[in-house]
Order: sequence, then structure tokens, then C-alpha cells
Amino acid sequence: MRRFGLCNTFRAVEGKRDTLADLLLEASKEMKKLEECELYIINSADDDPDVLYVYEVWSSKEAHQASLSMEVSQTLIEKARPILAGVEKTGPFTPLGGKGIPSSSLDS
Amino acid sequence: MRRFGLCNTFRAVEGKRDTLADLLLEASKEMKKLEECELYIINSADDDPDVLYVYEVWSSKEAHQASLSMEVSQTLIEKARPILAGVEKTGPFTPLGGKGIPSSSLDS
Repeated sequence: MRRFGLCNTFRAVEGKRDTLADLLLEASKEMKKLEECELYIINSADDDPDVLYVYEVWSSKEAHQASLSMEVSQTLIEKARPILAGVEKTGPFTPLGGKGIPSSSLDS
Repeated sequence: MRRFGLCNTFRAVEGKRDTLADLLLEASKEMKKLEECELYIINSADDDPDVLYVYEVWSSKEAHQASLSMEVSQTLIEKARPILAGVEKTGPFTPLGGKGIPSSSLDS
């Protein structure tokens, strides 16, 4: 099974980045209970006050897909909608290995 | 001290992505010995056969800066140079927390 990764850019409505970050950090607590979610890290851009990057690694595409219909995801989407100015996708990509994640076969 | 993160895009010369990935994976073995390097993950794009994304989290900007003069980094740069078509920066950013990384204060 091939891992599934994303590193999407979330642009908050001006002045709402911290609120958006809190929502994502809150959602990440639920992800901690999900084995298929290997990494879910919220990052705030240093050069843009409205931007967050969320780096995610899932055990498979299907696991990620299934998570979108979970209550925590639906709640996050609902709460984030009014303070979200846009989302820009980077990925999907296949995490191959390195530090902080076990190596997988080179599925490039 | 504020964490320091990057998610740069490495474009390999056509047909050389696997070789570039191997070089980065090799370098990541050295990063495993470095406490200040918290995460160093190599990801291969699913929609572009020449692209890798490297997601990095360091304990500080200074720790990352110091790593660039390490022998492993110099060797990586030398070996990668002939098969690297370009590098596009995303970041620096501040990892705030989530799954796979301890939360830090919200330094946005």
C-alpha cells in the first residue's frame, strides 16, 4: 500500500490566521487517535501573515479520503469556511522516507 | 526558541528523480543523528515525474543554517548538482504542532 501525502496552503481571511491555526490544531487532536494518519502538522508562514501550510501523511489515499467524512473533518470545514480565503494544493505526493517516518519502497 | 521549517520543491533532470531521491534518503540517515533536525522527509510528486518535495523541521533557524556546512550537506550538494534542474522554496515557516510533532507556542 502506498502512502499518501499533501502539503496544502491555507490562506486565512486577514487577521484570522491564529483562529484558523487553532481550529486545525484542535482537529489534529482527533488525528492523533487515527493510526492511518501518520503526520498532520500545522505550519505558519514566516513571510505571509495570512498563510498556513498543513503537511499531512496518510497510510493510503483511501485512508485520507475516508477521513474527510469524519465528524471532526466536517466540523473543521464548517468552522473554517467563514475565515478561509483560499486553499492551494501541493500534492498528492508519496512520502518515501527520511527522518520522522519509516522508509517505504521507492514508489515514484 | 522558534522551530524552523521548509518544504522545498526539487526538480530533477529528466529521468533522474530516483537517483536524487536516493541521495536525499542517504543524507537523511545523517540527519537521524542530529537532534536539532526533528523531521526530514522526502516525498515524490504523483503528478510530475521529475519532482520531489522535502519537508524539513529544525529546532531553530540557526540549527538549520549550521547543518548546511556539515560534510553530509556539502557531499549532497556536490552529488546532486549535476542531476538537479531547479529548487523552488516554500518557507521558511514555523511548525506550530499537530500529529507527529510536539506543540510549540503559537509564534505566528
